[in-house]
Amino acid sequence: MYNYPESLQSVIELLKKIPGIGFKSAQRIAFHLLKMPTQEVEKLGESISSLKTKLFFCSRCNNITDEEICPICNSSVREKEKLCIVEQPYNLYSIEKTGIYKGNYFVLLGSLSPLKGIGPDDLHLDKLDILIKENGVKEIIIATNPNVEGEATSMFLKNYLSKYPEVKITKLSVGLPIGSDIDYTDEITLLKAFEKRYEM
Amino acid sequence: MYNYPESLQSVIELLKKIPGIGFKSAQRIAFHLLKMPTQEVEKLGESISSLKTKLFFCSRCNNITDEEICPICNSSVREKEKLCIVEQPYNLYSIEKTGIYKGNYFVLLGSLSPLKGIGPDDLHLDKLDILIKENGVKEIIIATNPNVEGEATSMFLKNYLSKYPEVKITKLSVGLPIGSDIDYTDEITLLKAFEKRYEM
Repeated sequence: MYNYPESLQSVIELLKKIPGIGFKSAQRIAFHLLKMPTQEVEKLGESISSLKTKLFFCSRCNNITDEEICPICNSSVREKEKLCIVEQPYNLYSIEKTGIYKGNYFVLLGSLSPLKGIGPDDLHLDKLDILIKENGVKEIIIATNPNVEGEATSMFLKNYLSKYPEVKITKLSVGLPIGSDIDYTDEITLLKAFEKRYEM
Repeated sequence: MYNYPESLQSVIELLKKIPGIGFKSAQRIAFHLLKMPTQEVEKLGESISSLKTKLFFCSRCNNITDEEICPICNSSVREKEKLCIVEQPYNLYSIEKTGIYKGNYFVLLGSLSPLKGIGPDDLHLDKLDILIKENGVKEIIIATNPNVEGEATSMFLKNYLSKYPEVKITKLSVGLPIGSDIDYTDEITLLKAFEKRYEM
C-alpha cells in the first residue's frame, strides 16, 4: 500500500495518540503544518519538545506551573481560608477566567474511576490535608465535574473531609445553563433544576 | 488575570492557529502532551520541526514526497496512460487506500475559489500539461470534491482539457453513500442519486 513520506507519517501517527484526534484530524493538522511558515512550525515543534522539561505540578496544590510553587499558592492577596477542589488544572483555569473566586485551589489530578483504575490513593489526599491545615481553611468548595465520576469523587470527598468538622463544605450548583433553552436541556439537568429550585 | 505558564500558553496559542482547533481543543491537546512519556513528546516536537525541511511537492504531480519525484510517479508498474486529478495529497491517499486505482495522479493543490483568491493560475496547469504529454495519457479521471468549489474546478478542467480531444475525460460518480440511510441523506445528494440512477 502507498504510504505518506516517513516524516509526515510519523507526525500523523504521533498526533493520533492524542484522545479525540483520529486519523483524519491528524492528517488535516499535519497538512496544515506543511502550509504554515517554517519559522512557526519550528517554534511549535520546539515548544512541544520543551513542554515536559519546563513544567511541573505545584508542590502545594498540583496546579501546572514552571516554578516549584504556582503563582496562586504564592500570592499574598488570595483568600487562603477558602479552598476550591477541582479535578484538573484546566478546570482551575476555567474558574479563574470568571474572576468570581479569589481563594486557593487544590487539583486532584483525576477523579475516582474504577474503570480507569483510579482510586482514592491517586487523588493526592496527603497534600490536600497539609494544605487545609497550613492555610487554616474555613470553606472547601467542591468543584468536580457534574458527571458520574465527578459525583462519586464529590461524595467521597464529603466523607473524607468530615474529619474537619469546623470546615464548611460546599459544592457548585447544578441547573439550567444560562443562555440555554429548556427544550434543548437534557432530562437529567432539567430534573436537577427542579430538585434544586429556589425561592425568588 | 491568571495565565498558564508561558511554555504551556505558547503551545496552546500555536495549536489554536490550526483550523478546526479552538482554545478548548488546544488546551486538551497540550494537557495530554504533558501526560505522555517525555520521549514521545520530544519525538513529536522534533518530527514537527523537521516537517517543513524534509518534505516537498513532487516535481511531476505535486504529491507530497521526501524525494524529488514521488514513489507513484517513479513506479514502473502504474498504468501511466491513466491520470486521476485530485485537489490535495490527502485525496490521493484516500483513493490509494481503496486499492481500486492503479494509474498516476495529478494534485492541483487547491480548487477554484474566487473568495479565497484561487484562480486557474494557481492550479499548476503547466505541470499538468507536461504530465499528460509525457505519460501519453488516454483517460483523465476528475476526482475533485463534490462541493461548490470542486464542481467549479471540475467544469473548468473539462473545458481546459478539451484541447486533448483524444483523451477520455471521466468523473467520479455521485449518489447515496454505501451504508447510509435514505432518510438521513441530504436533499441534494438524493436529487443527484435520482438524476444519475442506472438500469439494473
